[in-house]
Amino acid sequence: MVLGRTGKSETWFTEYQTDSLSLGLRIHSVLQSKTTGFQELLVVETETYGRLLALDGAVQTTARDEYVYHEMITHVPLFMLDAPKKVAVIGGGDGGAIREILKHPTVEEAHLVEIDAEVVDTARQYFPEISVALGDPRAHVHYADGIEWVKNARDLDVIIVDSTDPVGAAQGLFQAQFYQTIAGALTQDGILVAQSESPFLHQDLIRQMRDGMRTAFSEVRLYCAAIPTYPSGFWSFLMASNHPTAPSARTMGTNIETRYWTPDLQTAAFVLPRFVEELMA
Amino acid sequence: MVLGRTGKSETWFTEYQTDSLSLGLRIHSVLQSKTTGFQELLVVETETYGRLLALDGAVQTTARDEYVYHEMITHVPLFMLDAPKKVAVIGGGDGGAIREILKHPTVEEAHLVEIDAEVVDTARQYFPEISVALGDPRAHVHYADGIEWVKNARDLDVIIVDSTDPVGAAQGLFQAQFYQTIAGALTQDGILVAQSESPFLHQDLIRQMRDGMRTAFSEVRLYCAAIPTYPSGFWSFLMASNHPTAPSARTMGTNIETRYWTPDLQTAAFVLPRFVEELMA
Repeated sequence: MVLGRTGKSETWFTEYQTDSLSLGLRIHSVLQSKTTGFQELLVVETETYGRLLALDGAVQTTARDEYVYHEMITHVPLFMLDAPKKVAVIGGGDGGAIREILKHPTVEEAHLVEIDAEVVDTARQYFPEISVALGDPRAHVHYADGIEWVKNARDLDVIIVDSTDPVGAAQGLFQAQFYQTIAGALTQDGILVAQSESPFLHQDLIRQMRDGMRTAFSEVRLYCAAIPTYPSGFWSFLMASNHPTAPSARTMGTNIETRYWTPDLQTAAFVLPRFVEELMA
Repeated sequence: MVLGRTGKSETWFTEYQTDSLSLGLRIHSVLQSKTTGFQELLVVETETYGRLLALDGAVQTTARDEYVYHEMITHVPLFMLDAPKKVAVIGGGDGGAIREILKHPTVEEAHLVEIDAEVVDTARQYFPEISVALGDPRAHVHYADGIEWVKNARDLDVIIVDSTDPVGAAQGLFQAQFYQTIAGALTQDGILVAQSESPFLHQDLIRQMRDGMRTAFSEVRLYCAAIPTYPSGFWSFLMASNHPTAPSARTMGTNIETRYWTPDLQTAAFVLPRFVEELMA
């Protein structure tokens, strides 16, 4: 980019997180901007958060804060189990969730079910540190509709719904019917985790997802993490199962390397602010 | 404001949180915009977060998320003590911290030490629900320089540094010398809490404050809360004392009304993400 009179690029990426709320990031370059069969895909280099992937204008991941989301959507459910073997990620084409899942030595199969192959291609090209584990022999990439794929899946220990926001193609990933299908694809002790947006901004959606999960699961819990590039900076995850969950004994002694998740956060992430507790009542 | 072609106001408030990162909020009206003896003061009505107070362009408080900051900067230190009686707030001219402090029935004196009387006047006029407790007979408002005021203060159970960002007049509130003065104004069991900015964006400052507090206190701990209108949405507070702190027995049975703080968060707020733990190492 040409530099302005301040000696800085004068080009910004702006996400309208709602129609009255925006996040602006100064960028150095646009690395990719294309229309795939499913969405608008943009890769820019930002000053504050490094390389950034946006889909339909919404930040999906950045090089500098991606670890929060990817660690928290994976390690929390996986550490509830003594020996997770078979895990699937619906969405999550950047590969970050797969990278974290494969840090668990018991995992034999990590399936990535991404509808848009161009997201995976882009991650491989522009986010090698995020997509790094997609070449692992335990990783299986399926370019498919997550809803259809889950219908034929069985015996999964963990299913992670790493979706975009609930608009367009992703809407079905937030419905009760999908959670019922997921329940059929999990083992008896299996766990579903889905990203469930911001407790400050998306309370109706969280209640809808909570109610949908309750049609298929006896236990539905919510936990949170701080993600600066997502709307409000505070994000939630709904976890559903048909048995009470508690951290596995292997949690405390783990040598898995993380930058956000810790053994103590495995429990503390479920300790919610009162207004979020009330969302789950 | 005149409405644009979308039927919405086309006027926005934009905070440049760093020179490469901005938060934009659609506004309905500008209620006050003036230069005080100390700073630029702005009150606007936003669509997303209601009424907003900015000083020198930085969001200080909004009607819809102020409870997070005000509850977490006060209840966490106060619930470490069995019977806090005398508390001071340095800065915090909106009165929100005083409102929360006075929910503790043992408190006899809550001192507000604000350098800029126009901030207090503005809070009284435009934020009645935040400044509501300033008329309480236990509340004492001092229009003074916090550093000078603390030099003559004694026997405080808790001192809360509710400052603006560390630029201009507020810089002295982030220095080791100020923390040493505070140590002299506290009781033996007294506690200092200071807002310490974002763990994502202001790591050097947090380390500097940590080191400054360690020159005057044996125990320095950090806790966090989610504040959507502050940079990165994730905020930290440093707590310092000359004795190990633990939640008072009155914490669990409290009937203090809150929207963010809970008895369980009193402990869980100190369980930090790994990268924040490392900041305190």
